[in-house]
Amino acid sequence: MPSQPNNQPLRESAQVDNASVQPMPGSKKVYVEGSRPDVRVPMREIQLSQTPTEFGGEENPSLRVYDTSGIYTDPEASIDLRRGLPALRAAWIEERGDTEILPKASAYYTQKRQDDPELTALRFDLSRQPRRAKKGANVSQMHYARRGIITPEMEYIAIRENMALAEARERGDVQHPGEAFGANIPEEITPEFVRSEVARGRAIIPCNINHPESEPMIIGRNFLVKINGNIGNSALGSSIEEEVAKLTWGTRWGADTVMDLSTGKHIHETREWILRNAPVPIGTVPIYQALEKVDGVAEDLTWEVFRDTLIEQAEQGVDYFTIHAGVLLRYVPLTAERVTGIVSRGGSIMAKWCLAHHKENFLYTHFDDICEIMKAYDVAFSLGDGLRPGSVADANDAAQFGELETLGELTHRAWKHDVQVMVEGPGHVPMQMIKENMDKQIEACGEAPFYTLGPLTTDIAPGYDHITSGIGAAMIGWYGCAMLCYVTPKEHLGLPNKDDVKTGIITYKIAAHAADLAKGHPGAQLRDNALSKARFEFRWEDQFNLGLDPDTARSFHDETLPKDSAKVAHFCSMCGPKFCSMRISQEVRDHVAAQGTEVVEEAVRMIDVEAEMQEKAREFREQGAELYQKV
Amino acid sequence: MPSQPNNQPLRESAQVDNASVQPMPGSKKVYVEGSRPDVRVPMREIQLSQTPTEFGGEENPSLRVYDTSGIYTDPEASIDLRRGLPALRAAWIEERGDTEILPKASAYYTQKRQDDPELTALRFDLSRQPRRAKKGANVSQMHYARRGIITPEMEYIAIRENMALAEARERGDVQHPGEAFGANIPEEITPEFVRSEVARGRAIIPCNINHPESEPMIIGRNFLVKINGNIGNSALGSSIEEEVAKLTWGTRWGADTVMDLSTGKHIHETREWILRNAPVPIGTVPIYQALEKVDGVAEDLTWEVFRDTLIEQAEQGVDYFTIHAGVLLRYVPLTAERVTGIVSRGGSIMAKWCLAHHKENFLYTHFDDICEIMKAYDVAFSLGDGLRPGSVADANDAAQFGELETLGELTHRAWKHDVQVMVEGPGHVPMQMIKENMDKQIEACGEAPFYTLGPLTTDIAPGYDHITSGIGAAMIGWYGCAMLCYVTPKEHLGLPNKDDVKTGIITYKIAAHAADLAKGHPGAQLRDNALSKARFEFRWEDQFNLGLDPDTARSFHDETLPKDSAKVAHFCSMCGPKFCSMRISQEVRDHVAAQGTEVVEEAVRMIDVEAEMQEKAREFREQGAELYQKV
Repeated sequence: MPSQPNNQPLRESAQVDNASVQPMPGSKKVYVEGSRPDVRVPMREIQLSQTPTEFGGEENPSLRVYDTSGIYTDPEASIDLRRGLPALRAAWIEERGDTEILPKASAYYTQKRQDDPELTALRFDLSRQPRRAKKGANVSQMHYARRGIITPEMEYIAIRENMALAEARERGDVQHPGEAFGANIPEEITPEFVRSEVARGRAIIPCNINHPESEPMIIGRNFLVKINGNIGNSALGSSIEEEVAKLTWGTRWGADTVMDLSTGKHIHETREWILRNAPVPIGTVPIYQALEKVDGVAEDLTWEVFRDTLIEQAEQGVDYFTIHAGVLLRYVPLTAERVTGIVSRGGSIMAKWCLAHHKENFLYTHFDDICEIMKAYDVAFSLGDGLRPGSVADANDAAQFGELETLGELTHRAWKHDVQVMVEGPGHVPMQMIKENMDKQIEACGEAPFYTLGPLTTDIAPGYDHITSGIGAAMIGWYGCAMLCYVTPKEHLGLPNKDDVKTGIITYKIAAHAADLAKGHPGAQLRDNALSKARFEFRWEDQFNLGLDPDTARSFHDETLPKDSAKVAHFCSMCGPKFCSMRISQEVRDHVAAQGTEVVEEAVRMIDVEAEMQEKAREFREQGAELYQKV
Repeated sequence: MPSQPNNQPLRESAQVDNASVQPMPGSKKVYVEGSRPDVRVPMREIQLSQTPTEFGGEENPSLRVYDTSGIYTDPEASIDLRRGLPALRAAWIEERGDTEILPKASAYYTQKRQDDPELTALRFDLSRQPRRAKKGANVSQMHYARRGIITPEMEYIAIRENMALAEARERGDVQHPGEAFGANIPEEITPEFVRSEVARGRAIIPCNINHPESEPMIIGRNFLVKINGNIGNSALGSSIEEEVAKLTWGTRWGADTVMDLSTGKHIHETREWILRNAPVPIGTVPIYQALEKVDGVAEDLTWEVFRDTLIEQAEQGVDYFTIHAGVLLRYVPLTAERVTGIVSRGGSIMAKWCLAHHKENFLYTHFDDICEIMKAYDVAFSLGDGLRPGSVADANDAAQFGELETLGELTHRAWKHDVQVMVEGPGHVPMQMIKENMDKQIEACGEAPFYTLGPLTTDIAPGYDHITSGIGAAMIGWYGCAMLCYVTPKEHLGLPNKDDVKTGIITYKIAAHAADLAKGHPGAQLRDNALSKARFEFRWEDQFNLGLDPDTARSFHDETLPKDSAKVAHFCSMCGPKFCSMRISQEVRDHVAAQGTEVVEEAVRMIDVEAEMQEKAREFREQGAELYQKV
């Protein structure tokens, strides 16, 4: 992890995390061009080797996979944290003609920070000024979608999501049918499909006009399941450079969005560095910073401080805001009997404010004012579940589901403004109670995308909550959840370091992919099939490179069989050279090839006969038991 | 990891793994006595501290949890690998009067090994001779159960399984109702219930009369979900002492049974060391060793070699045998078109044998002969799924389900002999296809316990297959699977070391416990509730000690807040001292306590009103949409 050199100012010295800029092993960065040359959709193309001669000697086509890593994995790109990423969407935003460049940032707080000479050394050196919708204009993707406009962002997304499907069609690869629980994933993702899903609120494209560096992506249950990684320092530690390293590291391994949950010093400056170097949408919880501004005293929060914070962050380019507007005064007492009370930071801040003033949550009463800000920059709502359960004992209780009803009401209010919305969900929920969360959310929130934290399926494994929650995340993803917020091994215990971020991301990529398979997302199984074929054929390098984490797979393999020759060996360490089930399987194939397909047909016939006999035997046993009982 | 000293013979030098004999942190080993003084059921009692004064200052009763670690975690016990564990079941077996002590081991191979002076230094020094059923007797627990006999083993198990329930009743602790999919877990586990479940074949008690050291346990879907850990060396490495260390390490963290899958040199001697020091049932796959005896040439296998191997291992004390008797000649061609062919080692050996001789699998044709051996020692069947899928592409195909029908037929044949049976299952299965596996197994195998490997829900994460499979394991456990065979991070890549064993075990304890919660196993939620309460009250030490892995939880916490004072601090590193949602929750409680319960009642009433209004709004929108469409 890079640490800040002693005397050099960050704006001059900031270094990219070296581990984040290596190209992915065995892969090539490719760009697929859309209808215009500046729609260039990045993909990772995994190069595969030939099948060994004894297994048939065929060519294996390279495989293109979804790629969130940005230009950091492109060896042709020039990377400089101090300059930030290229503003790939700038022309699209500009040519829509509905925005204007402000003379300077509108937020009082931003101005104060910019005028502070002590922050110069720390500050990202951004030359451009923020952009805002022209008076009366609405620049949200939902607004365009509802007027029938297909934006370049939508086309970009269609290419990005469709890629695996096109390959699947071309290859005729096998895939099991899914069980999609009401999701309806088309055979081909078209730009028009993207538009229609955004128009009806079933998907969102988080893309603030002040974050033109981000590569468009979509969150909705008829698309690939997405994952979010959290970063952010707290009062207790970690530097700006470390947080940026967590960002580039997290997106390298597959984070589709990143939330900056910083609560420590220099929140504003940290966020600027993150945004300027983020190829993915960035989310925040503005109330955290608002609280810092009133010295951590929740009851001192005001709408004015919060409003200024929203504008500050919107003009920096934050793509979605978690807003805990559903924590109503009357729900707060419902948490008193809980085992773990209120565990959401935002939820507890608002609960405290409501109680202290005995007034309704100002985020709720000012909700339309917030919508006005959101549509001027295209910031999407992530309606926070401030009353989510913090233990399985508190799952699906009155406080949680009461708040969910309110989130449903707010979803429809935001949609009246053509503002994009997703809705946050729990938390800690045992397996048998997960589906109810998804079903209730779909009904209450009119199919707005659901975005859950896990859920954790048991409380008894601190240190392993990426796993307790990965189980729940896979399941709720299958049931229709659109984005899964990762949980790291440090959950409940401490701040995640880079290793924890990676472990959390990979665990959640597994959950999201398992959900895509289960929903029957067209083409999702391509990568499984390619990897399994490589495994069967002892193409070790291909097996590593097709995996979610080639480095770890390779190093685990090398622990037992470190020699390079072992990576072309046609056996593995589990069985050793003499005793290999994969090799025997190949002999079965050769046998069947020699015998002809009649043996297979005969076998299938025999299974049917046998099943019939078994059924007869079962009937006989059951009748026998009955007869016996009657006697 | 201990390694063998250079010149000292193992029988003199063998050292227990030091990490395995530490008492569990914050815990006391206790024994609950049954109806006779030699029924002493071990439990781990976790001591809890008082709730801090500001949260109410109450006492927190200690919590007893299921304990598989044997006497290794008992500071009073004297541990010596060279002597092995005390034979706690010896008197029970002896007093049944249906067994005899043999003058010497019956297997030809055992005699050969015992007569080899070169093995003396390596050999465990066992003074007693093997035991076998008297001529014509059947010593299986199923046989006793069917004759209405409640054995001390059954009483032991009832106490062991019932303990959490009794505590739950006493405390009146909250627990969510489960969804048990046909499982039927009583409010109290009685010895008679154990007997009846074993009698009808819905549960097994693997307890070979030659493994009197093992602590009785039960596998069945109306009991706690169990997990198995695999150990074993291969031709490529690892010593006997290392394997014993993996055993004691695995049971320390919760392995309910351990399978010794060794395929390398000294299989016989390794197994002896493992059995004599194993507090849990040991399973094996005898065909592995039989294959070694014919120099790895599958077609040279004979019934005679296999039979001798069964007797050799039965007289050593192996508690269950994986037998791949369902791999029928006619199923083999069905695997030819698979992406990954046959991936089970045992399955591929038998497939090769069948093809080479063009004869039916000798394990199938000799199945009744095998039953005769099983009942003379009380070895349970684990009917192997030799044709399980090795990739999601191959899941639930004709080969797999054809074999399952045959395993059903064999289950009923074994039951005619009063021999205990469980049935092995896959493998690699995407989420939406898992339940079909459970349902078909229950139907085909008359509710005999199912014992699955994962299943892995995707193939694309080598290095993380404990997680890809932990997801599937939790789900199939919920659906009714009785035992989950762990998968370590090294799956598909290499041999697990001690760290991998622990990671695999903890992951599977999570899956099993999540399944117990989801099934509504009475009392399962006690530990979650206790841990969550400790978490809420900032009782850090209690939170660590109640977790599945206190050491890791503590060390993660210390990475961010290493000071000892932080472990009594009433905040955590995620938010820091000024900004703590837990503390705010306590203020909510104080508020409600001051206000009275009317605020809560009013809130619940308002939620109902709101839900009604939302429903009306939804109806209105839907009607509007309909009207619009009609126009």
